[in-house]
Amino acid sequence: MLEQLKRGTDEILVEAELIKKLEEGRPLRVKAGFDPTAPDLHLGHTVLINKLKQFQDLGHDILFLIGDFTAMIGDPTGKSVTRPPLTAEEIAKNAETYKEQVFKILDPAKTTVMFNSEWMSKMSAADMIQLAGKVTVARMLERNDFGERYNSNTPISIHEFLYPLVQGYDSVAMEADIELGGTDQKFNLLMGRTLQGHYGKSQQCTLTMPILEGLDGVQKMSKSLNNYIGIKDEPNDMFGKIMSISDELMWRYFELLSFRPMQEIAGWEKACQEGANPRNYKVKLAQEIITRFHDEASAIKALESFEAQFKRGVIPDDIAEIELLASAEGYALALLLKDAGLTSSTSESNRMVKQGAVKIDGEKVTDGKLVIQAGTEGVYQVGKRKFAKVKIKG
Amino acid sequence: MLEQLKRGTDEILVEAELIKKLEEGRPLRVKAGFDPTAPDLHLGHTVLINKLKQFQDLGHDILFLIGDFTAMIGDPTGKSVTRPPLTAEEIAKNAETYKEQVFKILDPAKTTVMFNSEWMSKMSAADMIQLAGKVTVARMLERNDFGERYNSNTPISIHEFLYPLVQGYDSVAMEADIELGGTDQKFNLLMGRTLQGHYGKSQQCTLTMPILEGLDGVQKMSKSLNNYIGIKDEPNDMFGKIMSISDELMWRYFELLSFRPMQEIAGWEKACQEGANPRNYKVKLAQEIITRFHDEASAIKALESFEAQFKRGVIPDDIAEIELLASAEGYALALLLKDAGLTSSTSESNRMVKQGAVKIDGEKVTDGKLVIQAGTEGVYQVGKRKFAKVKIKG
Repeated sequence: MLEQLKRGTDEILVEAELIKKLEEGRPLRVKAGFDPTAPDLHLGHTVLINKLKQFQDLGHDILFLIGDFTAMIGDPTGKSVTRPPLTAEEIAKNAETYKEQVFKILDPAKTTVMFNSEWMSKMSAADMIQLAGKVTVARMLERNDFGERYNSNTPISIHEFLYPLVQGYDSVAMEADIELGGTDQKFNLLMGRTLQGHYGKSQQCTLTMPILEGLDGVQKMSKSLNNYIGIKDEPNDMFGKIMSISDELMWRYFELLSFRPMQEIAGWEKACQEGANPRNYKVKLAQEIITRFHDEASAIKALESFEAQFKRGVIPDDIAEIELLASAEGYALALLLKDAGLTSSTSESNRMVKQGAVKIDGEKVTDGKLVIQAGTEGVYQVGKRKFAKVKIKG
Repeated sequence: MLEQLKRGTDEILVEAELIKKLEEGRPLRVKAGFDPTAPDLHLGHTVLINKLKQFQDLGHDILFLIGDFTAMIGDPTGKSVTRPPLTAEEIAKNAETYKEQVFKILDPAKTTVMFNSEWMSKMSAADMIQLAGKVTVARMLERNDFGERYNSNTPISIHEFLYPLVQGYDSVAMEADIELGGTDQKFNLLMGRTLQGHYGKSQQCTLTMPILEGLDGVQKMSKSLNNYIGIKDEPNDMFGKIMSISDELMWRYFELLSFRPMQEIAGWEKACQEGANPRNYKVKLAQEIITRFHDEASAIKALESFEAQFKRGVIPDDIAEIELLASAEGYALALLLKDAGLTSSTSESNRMVKQGAVKIDGEKVTDGKLVIQAGTEGVYQVGKRKFAKVKIKG
């Protein structure tokens, strides 16, 4: 059981204590905190949620904490435009979006969704000062990012010292037995452990999960780096993205994203080392992920569509049909690709043409300065998976 | 007027702004904050109160702030036994003791006594976080004592960063035009100025007063160093203590403690340089101080008693009469002096004998090992001002 819980983990503190808690036989209170400001989840987020699911499947209580209290405060320095305070309505809406997504993995009946405003909004300034008395400035500056910012003279507002205290106090209020988080959350998770001690509560263990690499296999999966698989992505997109990852990254994804037993996965890895085609296992992974977030039929359909497209070189039959209005001079190709949604900018268009990744009706384009005249129609393709049927009108 | 307000000050920030405020002609809101935990005032405390009186005499509003909010919290780290949280009752009692003392200088009718719990107890944890967002960690570590403690690895609890914010916020709530404090308070006073700016209020000026030296003329006046003149000290004690200070310190005390115009004091100083006896001016100072905290009659009586004692070498007629019970061997002198309250320890007794400062019935004692037999009676004297009539019983 412990072996299963340790799958993919970065660190468990303190493991001996966790073993003891597990041996008590009672359902443990398993806490994980989420920020209600960014409810568009990708597979990177699900690494943690998958671990919660493991605990849930073992009969433990999942406490899904939405940190609405701090979100309602926003950024009191007023410096960050990306952190405006959220209203209660926005938070409620975001929470719903969250639940809708995480309940594709977790069982709603066995998950308690909590909001820390429940206890934090009752807390007075005096209580906050009491709380702040439990931790030293030096301890707080030990947190990697604070230490680096202090040493490089990047301003740290004092309220930023209070947020880890709030997060830690949540564990006190929730009586958490264990808290899960990303490796970057280790300091904050341990703060919960520390504060529980100060408030005379049983201390939580902490379990950190690694940050998932994006499709490039190097940088962390993130929306802004555009190397992510959103859990709301269309089945065909999911399929294509998963098939695009390296074989090495595939095994990493298997460990962190698949629910198949590690023993089975190890068998597949061994098979590949002995000559089996990794592509077949990548398909398995893609099928599992698509089934989880859509359904099995969609997974099969995505596979078929993928095979039709790539193995037989056929243009998919459900591509977008777009009409664009050209100027008197016609439509510059770079602009056309952008306006058809195949690239995000004309400079990307130009780069794609240079890379030989642009085709019109199956013919590779080599002239980046190409201008398309009104009255024409064609299938435009960028890369392996982006298609649009475009009609140019005058 | 400004010249008068600047008397004895350490620093005014920003002087040009203060001049502007004074020129508005309205009564300014003059804030000074006090900790309700130590209501036994000595002359060192009155340096600031005297400055408040100057403002009051010029028609300004004195806001005498008692920082009860933080006193009620005490020391949340639990490390300091000297800072237990105070109850509302204790604070109310201490506040009364305060008022009783400061109203010997300030006019109660023109002084508003405020308690910061009025606004701080209504403040929520969320408000506290907002407030903490206004200031950076680096700024806070610029405060001398914090910087030194951080650099020497002496723990600073995070709540200690919140206290200057509370003090600063008091200025926001009170709409202070100027805040007075000791030089050691400069950082905190400027915090009020900063926060008023953040909250869109007119910013206060700050005026710092030096820390008064104790009777030794070197260390700051403090109860624990026993170099102080308490404002509740008996007239004779006050007189004796003031007469004991150096001539140099006398001029310092004149500047910071006397209400006589500086021009007059400068005249006296000049007279002394030209041969006048400083002792006569010390008497003037003593008379003024005693009159302030007792009354004129007491001041005159103290002078007469002092003159009788020192100029004519007579034992004062109101000395304590004490009976002590000797053992079979008699009463060792060193112990006798201690038990009679003339010294604080036998080692002090021995030191005094060595210094030739101990007399029995006017006769200097040279034998430190002297043992007094039961059945005797005598006037014991230590130094110039301590007397007791002691009867030794068997």
